Amino acid sequence: MPRRFPDDPAAWQALGTTYLFRKPPWLVLRHQGFRLPNGREIADYWISEYPPWVNIVAVTATDQVVLIRQYRPGLDDVHYEIPAGVVDPGEDIEAAARRELAEETGYGGGRWSVLTRLSANPALQNNITTSYLAEGVVPLGRAQPEATEDLRVHLVPLAEIPGFIDSGDMIQALHTAPLLRYLLRRRA
Amino acid sequence: MPRRFPDDPAAWQALGTTYLFRKPPWLVLRHQGFRLPNGREIADYWISEYPPWVNIVAVTATDQVVLIRQYRPGLDDVHYEIPAGVVDPGEDIEAAARRELAEETGYGGGRWSVLTRLSANPALQNNITTSYLAEGVVPLGRAQPEATEDLRVHLVPLAEIPGFIDSGDMIQALHTAPLLRYLLRRRA
Repeated sequence: MPRRFPDDPAAWQALGTTYLFRKPPWLVLRHQGFRLPNGREIADYWISEYPPWVNIVAVTATDQVVLIRQYRPGLDDVHYEIPAGVVDPGEDIEAAARRELAEETGYGGGRWSVLTRLSANPALQNNITTSYLAEGVVPLGRAQPEATEDLRVHLVPLAEIPGFIDSGDMIQALHTAPLLRYLLRRRA
Repeated sequence: MPRRFPDDPAAWQALGTTYLFRKPPWLVLRHQGFRLPNGREIADYWISEYPPWVNIVAVTATDQVVLIRQYRPGLDDVHYEIPAGVVDPGEDIEAAARRELAEETGYGGGRWSVLTRLSANPALQNNITTSYLAEGVVPLGRAQPEATEDLRVHLVPLAEIPGFIDSGDMIQALHTAPLLRYLLRRRA
């Protein structure tokens, strides 16, 4: 459990909720008003609801990281990413991560552990992204991306990751954070 | 410029854009269809447009990090954060970061540099968050948060940050990534 302090800000009081869209898992958007602890009201606030997300820092026995390159329409560009996806309804979170790694890259196996649990935006969305560390992964088969996925697999030396972040070649905060957490652990 | 590869996935072709909401800077939501390079079409895709965002890794001369605690309705919880905010129309990005640090914490001064440029989600939103490193900050005045901000300032030793991430006390990917990038640099 995260720690608490006696003087922590109090929760806001919800004043009413209207769902504007219900298209899970892509867009579930609710509108709410809130009353703040100081009595002030926020009339318009929007929160997106998503299923849990997963991603994977997958490293081979020779310290190569399994990355993908993929077009992303929000930024209209291609960058390095780690394999990632959405947890299906009823699916175990680690099983979802193992499935995504296999589908997107063909890699699997190795020793799995949770690396980080992070939010893309705790103000505007309600889900958590669990990042797994998979050490000692090996190619198990062919990648089988979905029909709407168009990606390339790249093996990159772990030591190059900080440079990729500094150069803008890797830009997704939910991907750079677990990679950096792992790198820091390796240097500790 | 990020690097390119000859076999990189091609951009998707936009098939039409409808703006569902225009409430900047909080919610500008557009609906689009896309045609993929393989000819397949995605009928429904939603992208949020935001102004540039900023945040600040502010460290004192004795390696204390200036953090805040703030309620966030997406997760309905309070965590440690770094000071952060939205760049106002026409505002210089570093000026916005200096303003947010002063407003939220009362701290300022020191040596400023860009630490990371990251996206909260390159698939679903269009903006970049610039994270500044401010080393040697000092208290310059009283914090002057906005009426809708209810936050507490905490000074925390830099060495405690990895533990905060592991324990779930710090959970925002856009905040943990630049902090970890800085910690890795300090250990290199």
